[in-house]
Amino acid sequence: MNFRILPPDSAAMAAAADRHLRLAKPAGSLGRLEDLGVRLAGMARSCPPPVPTPVTVAVFAADHGVANAGVTPWSQALTAAMVGAFARGVAAVNVLAAQVGAEVVVVDVGVAGDLPAHTAVLDAKVRRGTADLRLGPAMTEAETLAAFEVGRSVAGGAVARGAGCLVTGDMGIGNTTAAAALIAARTGGDPASLTGRGTGIDDQMLGRKVDIVEAVVKRSRGMRPLPLLAEIGGLEIAALAGFTVGGAEAGVPVVLDGVIALAGAVIADAITASAVRPYLVAGHRSVEPGASAALEHLGLMPLLDLDLRLGEGTGAVLAVPIVQAAARILGEMATFDEAGVTDKDPAT
Amino acid sequence: MNFRILPPDSAAMAAAADRHLRLAKPAGSLGRLEDLGVRLAGMARSCPPPVPTPVTVAVFAADHGVANAGVTPWSQALTAAMVGAFARGVAAVNVLAAQVGAEVVVVDVGVAGDLPAHTAVLDAKVRRGTADLRLGPAMTEAETLAAFEVGRSVAGGAVARGAGCLVTGDMGIGNTTAAAALIAARTGGDPASLTGRGTGIDDQMLGRKVDIVEAVVKRSRGMRPLPLLAEIGGLEIAALAGFTVGGAEAGVPVVLDGVIALAGAVIADAITASAVRPYLVAGHRSVEPGASAALEHLGLMPLLDLDLRLGEGTGAVLAVPIVQAAARILGEMATFDEAGVTDKDPAT
Repeated sequence: MNFRILPPDSAAMAAAADRHLRLAKPAGSLGRLEDLGVRLAGMARSCPPPVPTPVTVAVFAADHGVANAGVTPWSQALTAAMVGAFARGVAAVNVLAAQVGAEVVVVDVGVAGDLPAHTAVLDAKVRRGTADLRLGPAMTEAETLAAFEVGRSVAGGAVARGAGCLVTGDMGIGNTTAAAALIAARTGGDPASLTGRGTGIDDQMLGRKVDIVEAVVKRSRGMRPLPLLAEIGGLEIAALAGFTVGGAEAGVPVVLDGVIALAGAVIADAITASAVRPYLVAGHRSVEPGASAALEHLGLMPLLDLDLRLGEGTGAVLAVPIVQAAARILGEMATFDEAGVTDKDPAT
Repeated sequence: MNFRILPPDSAAMAAAADRHLRLAKPAGSLGRLEDLGVRLAGMARSCPPPVPTPVTVAVFAADHGVANAGVTPWSQALTAAMVGAFARGVAAVNVLAAQVGAEVVVVDVGVAGDLPAHTAVLDAKVRRGTADLRLGPAMTEAETLAAFEVGRSVAGGAVARGAGCLVTGDMGIGNTTAAAALIAARTGGDPASLTGRGTGIDDQMLGRKVDIVEAVVKRSRGMRPLPLLAEIGGLEIAALAGFTVGGAEAGVPVVLDGVIALAGAVIADAITASAVRPYLVAGHRSVEPGASAALEHLGLMPLLDLDLRLGEGTGAVLAVPIVQAAARILGEMATFDEAGVTDKDPAT
């Protein structure tokens, strides 16, 4: 595949770093907000960078055949029910999106069940859930590419309609099993230690989940990224990989949520020779162990660490004001000269 | 002194904890946002708690005699200049307050220099900076109480005019020296390891700063909280202690910034037999070592950790959307029943 992702603009980044030294504050005193501002200037190719707004949270929903393998107490029916809740604006991600002024777009890329009628959901269903990854590939490579293109076009479309910031969201019962397997396979980490409790499963289910992750990682050793993604699933992870690539192609920050988004980002990173990396912002550190492994693999430090493990995009959307603040500091704060402070360093 | 601080309402907290179990998400999956929501219900004495808004950031400015003792490269004139920048809305805290929709109130509680004419600043100057704490008490107990009451009445006044959330801010060249000494004295920690580089001083200045902090901590051993505060200063730290008490009396969350705010909070905690604690929200973890010691002393876990060390209220105001989100989740998110999800736990 061929992607049009520009490297970040180094002149804009240098201008932002220089401007941070002239703003009315001790050098470096805004810590990671300064680094993020420099990165945003690089993405936007201008200093100061525009405030990343409006914000689109895309929640990609799909089901996983492995959900029926005793790795979760929840049934696939919950995926469709929660999609209804997203569309009606009453789920956690909707509440948090309202807090930060973000729009939520819900995309059915592979929900197994039927959605309630008149649901405000983008219907891009590639198939009704993946196959059980224990028994063979979760999906075909054609389906993987189709789901990837759904995500990529959602990103491109959102930016074309004006979005200045994209946020990843997801829903899919069983998807922490697939995410752990993808992250273990790509990072080379130990499947047992990268597999977490997801929504909060007990020891017995966790043992089963680890066995399944270990088996599929072993079986898929040496696979290239897209065949690997097809082998493990799922449709929403493929869409998230495409969404991440699409955001990078459009030159806007892609704020990543937890372990599901990070599994997609790891694939996006692999298929773009890491060209997506400059556009990735880690919204938070999920408690799922695979999330930390993926963050390290991608060289990302999350903005928040609040022990979240819900998904939907909740942790990422909470980080949006920090991303916007980093840009605003460069654009709206006075330099020492503008503030009329001449006596700023009498000791030198 | 006599304060009217209610303990948090345990019935409202129990109702919030129960509601979190019924909301359409796995139990505990919103992590620290859930704990914060329960605390907000306790402060507001209702479940769901109101969203903490409007937000008032009070920036208390004052000077420190110790600033002339070689502990900082900046001159006291910068305090007055930065107050002018706050009043004109061009400093970092103004930019971040605009990001989160907060109002900034600037209070001169003891700036040494003259402020520019027509500056939109609350003039509550108790004296023109403290005395040099190396040579004797930084201020009298009467001045300490006067500054405390300035802060307390700013808090009470803001809430009376409708504020639902208070945020601490500060400006004062030399104030990390006083804050480190206050925190070391109250926590019993090692002065050398609690003294930080403030705006970024070199090893020689740091050595001098440590010597000064060690000497004043040794000299003030056994002092009760208010005489200790008078001995060390400063006027803005006394005002912040009063602001913290005033916020707790008014029953609203007080979002604490870095080491200066925490020094004030440690004093507020001491003089209220910890009655203020339920109302304290730690906005962020400053890189100043005294901040972490004070957070531990107060039993607080900060919401953000972004390597900030600017003060002004910048770290605290960045955390405001998270505080508001915690309340919104309880008030606006659907329960499983409301979302029409009946099949929520088929395995049990």
